[in-house]
Amino acid sequence: MPKQVDHRERRECIAHALWTLVDEQGWARATMREVAREAGVSLGQLQHYFSSRAEMLNFAIEFAGEQTSRRVARGLAALDQPPHSREVLRVVLIELLPLRPDARVTSRMNAAYVLEALHDSALHRQVAAGLRDGRAMVERLVRQAINEGQIPPGRDPMIETDLILALTGLAPLLELDVVSPSAALAAIDQHLDQLFCTGS
Amino acid sequence: MPKQVDHRERRECIAHALWTLVDEQGWARATMREVAREAGVSLGQLQHYFSSRAEMLNFAIEFAGEQTSRRVARGLAALDQPPHSREVLRVVLIELLPLRPDARVTSRMNAAYVLEALHDSALHRQVAAGLRDGRAMVERLVRQAINEGQIPPGRDPMIETDLILALTGLAPLLELDVVSPSAALAAIDQHLDQLFCTGS
Repeated sequence: MPKQVDHRERRECIAHALWTLVDEQGWARATMREVAREAGVSLGQLQHYFSSRAEMLNFAIEFAGEQTSRRVARGLAALDQPPHSREVLRVVLIELLPLRPDARVTSRMNAAYVLEALHDSALHRQVAAGLRDGRAMVERLVRQAINEGQIPPGRDPMIETDLILALTGLAPLLELDVVSPSAALAAIDQHLDQLFCTGS
Repeated sequence: MPKQVDHRERRECIAHALWTLVDEQGWARATMREVAREAGVSLGQLQHYFSSRAEMLNFAIEFAGEQTSRRVARGLAALDQPPHSREVLRVVLIELLPLRPDARVTSRMNAAYVLEALHDSALHRQVAAGLRDGRAMVERLVRQAINEGQIPPGRDPMIETDLILALTGLAPLLELDVVSPSAALAAIDQHLDQLFCTGS
């Protein structure tokens, strides 16, 4: 196996160990020493792949973003082709919420990153850039649906984009069992029905 | 001054010190030692008021909830009397989002508590109970507005309550400057206009 690929795979394994720790025991355990233990490598080996905790976190957040994109792509491939914009937005929202184990892990990572980013300017730039990319992708979908007449032309694409992203606020309510998964899905469907004017 | 009041006041001072630390430096600094230093007391004195970190966090989250309720009450008192349900919900949402310094502190505390609660069953119960109380309060307002004909009778009060609470998902977007305060307010107004059928 080429060295580059092996290096990447080792880094992904370490990122998975970090996620498992954060998912099962919380963000406070996301230290180099604890991650090395979880990944079954020595601290020295871990430092061969990541020279600092910041570098490890940067890689893990990028990798979490890629994993979310892959889950979205799989969800989109399972829709009728070409998929309706409403269904595309529904898949995106479902993959951003902690409704399934793999989405739960990346949702918890994202929540922890946001808090950490408030006091770390490099992480702040990275997390904000990731959120802006996600926001731009949703805005393109909303504008396309308005252009194609699926969403009424009077709707403001910026505001509607922010309202769709705001639905990720269901995540802490799901995590603490204040809202059930079926209630979260009903809320998403009600919001999208209203937006696409197919609701009551 | 009666001893009981003094004890309560000292605990509130310590809770404020904890908030300042979390707001300015992050959740990782919320240790007994760091909070004592921030509050200007010795670790021994701090332990006189809180026998454990868990007890300190429990008090601080209750106090954060009370402070949010006080801000909401002040916001409601400033409305035309009797206030319209739409305006009441608007005040609640604004006070839950990091739009002003005092609301930002409690918003950051709440986000940190949710993450900590995922791996601490006592805190989980406490945070979830607080969220359920808040959810029940919003649901009462929604049901009342439906009964009074301000919200169309076809709307499902449970789903509409969850959609209102989901708007707290604007918090991380505000914190990372992905959404501006004016855009967040526009999104809240658009959502409430649609719900109360006063929108375009």
